[in-house]
Amino acid sequence: MQTEEKHPVSLETLTTLCKRRGFIFQSSEIYGGLNGFWDFGPLGTELKNNLRDAWWRDMVRNPPPGPDGEMLDIVGLDSAIIQNPDVWKASGHLSGFNDPMADCKQSKSRYRADHLFVLMPPDAEGTAYAFLEGEENAARKKVQRKAKADPDRYEVKPFPEVASTDLSRIQGPDATEPGTLTEPRQFNLMFKTFIGALSGEGDENTAYLRPETAQGIFINYKNVIDTMRVKLPFGIAQVGKSFRNEVTPRNFIFRSREFEQMEMEWFCHPDEAEKWYNFWVETRLNWWASLGVDLRNLRRREHDEDELAHYSTACADVEYQYGFTAPGFGELEGIAHRGNFDLTQHQESSGTKLEYMIQETGERVLPHVIEPASGLTRGVLVLLNEAYTEEFVPKGDTEGGPIPANPGAQAPEGYETRTVMKFAPRLAPVKVAVFPLLKNRPELVEKAKEIHSELRKIWPVNYDQAGAIGRRYRRQDEIGTPYCVTIDFDSLEDNTVTVRERDSMEQVRVPASELATWLMSKGLSV
Amino acid sequence: MQTEEKHPVSLETLTTLCKRRGFIFQSSEIYGGLNGFWDFGPLGTELKNNLRDAWWRDMVRNPPPGPDGEMLDIVGLDSAIIQNPDVWKASGHLSGFNDPMADCKQSKSRYRADHLFVLMPPDAEGTAYAFLEGEENAARKKVQRKAKADPDRYEVKPFPEVASTDLSRIQGPDATEPGTLTEPRQFNLMFKTFIGALSGEGDENTAYLRPETAQGIFINYKNVIDTMRVKLPFGIAQVGKSFRNEVTPRNFIFRSREFEQMEMEWFCHPDEAEKWYNFWVETRLNWWASLGVDLRNLRRREHDEDELAHYSTACADVEYQYGFTAPGFGELEGIAHRGNFDLTQHQESSGTKLEYMIQETGERVLPHVIEPASGLTRGVLVLLNEAYTEEFVPKGDTEGGPIPANPGAQAPEGYETRTVMKFAPRLAPVKVAVFPLLKNRPELVEKAKEIHSELRKIWPVNYDQAGAIGRRYRRQDEIGTPYCVTIDFDSLEDNTVTVRERDSMEQVRVPASELATWLMSKGLSV
Repeated sequence: MQTEEKHPVSLETLTTLCKRRGFIFQSSEIYGGLNGFWDFGPLGTELKNNLRDAWWRDMVRNPPPGPDGEMLDIVGLDSAIIQNPDVWKASGHLSGFNDPMADCKQSKSRYRADHLFVLMPPDAEGTAYAFLEGEENAARKKVQRKAKADPDRYEVKPFPEVASTDLSRIQGPDATEPGTLTEPRQFNLMFKTFIGALSGEGDENTAYLRPETAQGIFINYKNVIDTMRVKLPFGIAQVGKSFRNEVTPRNFIFRSREFEQMEMEWFCHPDEAEKWYNFWVETRLNWWASLGVDLRNLRRREHDEDELAHYSTACADVEYQYGFTAPGFGELEGIAHRGNFDLTQHQESSGTKLEYMIQETGERVLPHVIEPASGLTRGVLVLLNEAYTEEFVPKGDTEGGPIPANPGAQAPEGYETRTVMKFAPRLAPVKVAVFPLLKNRPELVEKAKEIHSELRKIWPVNYDQAGAIGRRYRRQDEIGTPYCVTIDFDSLEDNTVTVRERDSMEQVRVPASELATWLMSKGLSV
Repeated sequence: MQTEEKHPVSLETLTTLCKRRGFIFQSSEIYGGLNGFWDFGPLGTELKNNLRDAWWRDMVRNPPPGPDGEMLDIVGLDSAIIQNPDVWKASGHLSGFNDPMADCKQSKSRYRADHLFVLMPPDAEGTAYAFLEGEENAARKKVQRKAKADPDRYEVKPFPEVASTDLSRIQGPDATEPGTLTEPRQFNLMFKTFIGALSGEGDENTAYLRPETAQGIFINYKNVIDTMRVKLPFGIAQVGKSFRNEVTPRNFIFRSREFEQMEMEWFCHPDEAEKWYNFWVETRLNWWASLGVDLRNLRRREHDEDELAHYSTACADVEYQYGFTAPGFGELEGIAHRGNFDLTQHQESSGTKLEYMIQETGERVLPHVIEPASGLTRGVLVLLNEAYTEEFVPKGDTEGGPIPANPGAQAPEGYETRTVMKFAPRLAPVKVAVFPLLKNRPELVEKAKEIHSELRKIWPVNYDQAGAIGRRYRRQDEIGTPYCVTIDFDSLEDNTVTVRERDSMEQVRVPASELATWLMSKGLSV
């Protein structure tokens, strides 16, 4: 997307822009919000839909050719969010989808136990100060202040390691005295609900909101085989919401409690799983790059053996250098070699045979599965991160192109800063903006509205007649509109318009009658 | 869609076809299903997505001109399913979104009290037999059999009317003795869940799955005004899942517990609300017709005054003649004049001013709202109902076109029945199918795959090489594919292909190089 390496944008800058320009709002904001939930505003909704549709087009309708050039067969699915609870027993989510949590009885705060560390004093009785990952310095300062001790003599230990023996002298991060933290307890991440319950909330009515879309695919695998004439290998893909009762939702939409996933389960012969695993890891990383994400901000990270689920023989993450992880990377998509774990579990639990018979040989196999599982919500965050650009432009927009700048940097004399979201045109929420040069000249307004109304049959188009043209350009830059069209007095004479391109800021005259065709030729897809 | 009036298709026929051809499956089927939940298979997902996209295109991107020919301004939104519970207090859903329910202590069945009726005997002590709406005949037969009495002397009364006085002698529909039904109790239709709960499921953690998408719009109304430069009147539109803990989910996907809605809230000046109400009722009915739904199967029904919510001054339903309601109609979309009820409630509950200031006059108004609220899931049911067609065709497919037939009718001699889903091409899940004439001739297969791979860059396309061409046509007819393309030996000579149109069954030769353009000229949109 950009050729110069640029500094990462802070989460705060991004969150502010998203709220100010209608990309993403705090959920239920007028009621004080709801921690871990977000609402997508008009532009965020379009951006997210565009990403969803790009994935669907490139994964379901027209996936890339396979490693041997063969045509791949992938079908879509849309399963329910609330499923029979037996699904989650079989998948292991009911027993195993847990985080160990510790509560603070004094401050009522709750912590992921594996995110807590403790500064253990050199003596066996002194207070041990607990702190959250990344806040060691603050904790050491507290030691100095409170215990008036030498913090360098304190040793750092993971909380779960010392919780059982030293609980009474450990002081929680938000507590004023030791002994208020509880021992770590398991906390299931699935949201619970009750179906059809009148007479209370008994176990027999309990159901769960799905924590992933994947299991909806596994339980429909047999239906798909029976109805869709698919032959091994094939894929089933699904986009949809999932819910995880995260203890500490954080980093804007990176870790929220309600989010969207784009998952595909690739069913293949066990002997070929390794080949397909490699194919999908490479394909998925390249896909993100094809959307305009700078390859330098993407990386493939193989999971270490101790990170792998017991049934999984390999897993790789496509990671992205988010503003808040830089210079580190954070997860964007995981591609897991799941073996036949899920089909085995569901076959055993449901009593339904899930073997696939290979017609040519009569061989029966329980297919192995490669799962490229991507966050749609997280993908939006990547697109926002990647698009966010600050540039110095000559004041008054008169001459010369933009000069790359780092977020927050001061513009040199004679220049001002413009913020521009450099979305790939296929992903930009608004494709074109149409301006009459002046709003008090009916002939300009009328012609602009005419062009607007023609273009919006094809694309999402904005109309703006308020303020100086330069300001209107800035408003469109900030939401990433690739093209701005101005109708001026020349337009009335010769029926041409000025088209200004977002990134280069270059302007050309285009005949109004050829405008749509011209824009298509510049890469605006229909 | 059809010109001849045809008999309605039964729900059973539709459900069977949907399952057999991968439109809609029972949710969690391998675990015995889950009452009120459905999974959309590969074709159902495409069909639903197409309907969703058509609505978005015609309501958000490019809505029709207003009653005075003016351009309408509607923006999209995608709010969270789990919202701050205060939203539901303010909207009235927490206190008022209830159905009165009665349980049967013997059979453990549960009934909507307002769906229950009772056959009251002429004497004051005899058993009164309760029955479900529509099952009066069965109940009268039971009276004859059990009480050996004259059922004609029994009087029908609504259960809630007699529940308080005659409970002890009323026998439930599934009970073998009287006195096992409970008095009607309120049952909230919202699914309950708990956020971030470790220490139990206390009230302070309770939240709800939204029972409608509309409230997500109202609570974001101010955010949209503040960020999107919209001017009154304007609309905010949203497509998404909603959840209602229906006591008796029924009629396939007509009344399910998890479903999708397409809702738009149109905010306007109170003085103009009446005008907009009429505009939207008419516009929305016409929209369904524009998708190919026969106007004879659609009707506008104004709500009676006693059906209206207390804050609503008018409400009309767009109703459809479903197979299971025929010759009656059932709800498809409701267009409600909600006044300023919702904004008033949220303004008072949240303490956030929600007035809109009209710049030109300085007037402050709390806008009135017209709400066209449509079921996406229910819309799919309409499309399936409307598309389902049985026809007699000459055996062997040799000559003559199709003859309209009623579902289940016997084909006359020399004819056979074909089932064809006559989806409008823009909604059809698969647009084109490509066949090599013979699967064991590599040159035909290769050319067919080439054409398939070209076309699927543009549309969802099927490839099928199994069985006789006639059988392959039938398979595509049954899923509503508008065009089938066959590659035969002539194709290898002159590079033309046979294109067969679904409804007329007519075949034409088209140069392979012009195929995509030809299909577009026939109305296949990109």
